[in-house]
Amino acid sequence: MRIVIQLFNRREMKMRKQDVSPAVIKRLPRYYRYLENLMEEGTERVSSEQLSGIMKITASQMRQDLNQFGGFGHQGYGYNVTRLHDEIGKILNINRVNNLIIIGAGNFGKCLATYSGFQNYGFHISAIFDKDPDVVGTDINGLTVLPMEKMEEVVREHNIHIAALCIPKSDVQEVADKLIEIGVKGLWNFAAVDLNVPDDVVVENTFLSESLMCLCYGIGENGEH
Amino acid sequence: MRIVIQLFNRREMKMRKQDVSPAVIKRLPRYYRYLENLMEEGTERVSSEQLSGIMKITASQMRQDLNQFGGFGHQGYGYNVTRLHDEIGKILNINRVNNLIIIGAGNFGKCLATYSGFQNYGFHISAIFDKDPDVVGTDINGLTVLPMEKMEEVVREHNIHIAALCIPKSDVQEVADKLIEIGVKGLWNFAAVDLNVPDDVVVENTFLSESLMCLCYGIGENGEH
Repeated sequence: MRIVIQLFNRREMKMRKQDVSPAVIKRLPRYYRYLENLMEEGTERVSSEQLSGIMKITASQMRQDLNQFGGFGHQGYGYNVTRLHDEIGKILNINRVNNLIIIGAGNFGKCLATYSGFQNYGFHISAIFDKDPDVVGTDINGLTVLPMEKMEEVVREHNIHIAALCIPKSDVQEVADKLIEIGVKGLWNFAAVDLNVPDDVVVENTFLSESLMCLCYGIGENGEH
Repeated sequence: MRIVIQLFNRREMKMRKQDVSPAVIKRLPRYYRYLENLMEEGTERVSSEQLSGIMKITASQMRQDLNQFGGFGHQGYGYNVTRLHDEIGKILNINRVNNLIIIGAGNFGKCLATYSGFQNYGFHISAIFDKDPDVVGTDINGLTVLPMEKMEEVVREHNIHIAALCIPKSDVQEVADKLIEIGVKGLWNFAAVDLNVPDDVVVENTFLSESLMCLCYGIGENGEH
């Protein structure tokens, strides 16, 4: 009977997606990565002290993070490494194949299309698009670059939820609007422009120049910290 | 006399670098970008309400951010766009040429080496290195790929403070240690490994797979938010 009550409470503790802070979400892939390392080393069980120690956060911070999704540890036992890894995978929705498309077959789009690291996490690049007729039809890593007009067809056929935007700033809002219209829910934006999107669309900005500026801030005025 | 006191107080208000939160630092390039847009439009003066409105933060948040660096606005006048832009550029240390090197001439290293967006902010790629003898000597965007043994010489000669690490996970800590030893103060790390570095070295992590995981979390279980 006690167990049932506990499970019920755990469920109750689980927070609604929109209440989880971006900082906690950003830590989830890190937990996942460290748990993967532990699995590779053959570790079956880990205490919150051990795991948080490797991750250089406090054990209390870690418990607080994981409690937002309903816990997963047992008092005195700690965490089952494989189970926690799989649970975090489920929370991140990477426990399945996620098809994505790339818009823009320029330098950066090509780079993403040939990056192999995504496959390990179930990400699959279904197609790459470009508006330049000279680029359309060329081959990138086994994918034929498609014209923008084909976007809708591919999104519907391959059940695409994610698009990476590797296009110039001037085009990005218009293309984002079109993608949203045809059902894309997640935009990975590499053009340094803040997109206007409806509430049910998620944007992840990866602005390389801005990362470099933050680094430059950190190294200080004379290149010294 | 009043002005002198005010200037003095402003200085006193300025926070030490290590006390500024990462969230505030991450907003600085965004302020810079929006001010750049305003300059391009010919806007000379902006109120905190207007600027924060465009940036979709509160005016109070914005004033609080800028006060950490000593203010820059005038009651009733707002901000001089060009001056604020230049001041933020100085805070970010991008008001000068920043030389950087790229370690790893694989897919991603090549992509960074051919990316033109950095030049607008005074970033200059001085050299690119690889450990593969078959890659050394090849040309990427006008740069000849150098062997790792040349790293020290180039860092000293070109006064390099920043290195972008585009190498496999297994090599990244060892290469980071070497770079730190020869005087590099800022590491832009693309290998999904948390680096151990001394306190006077800054690391900026750009982990593409983890950004994609956060996006996948956002789109939800059925690809719906």
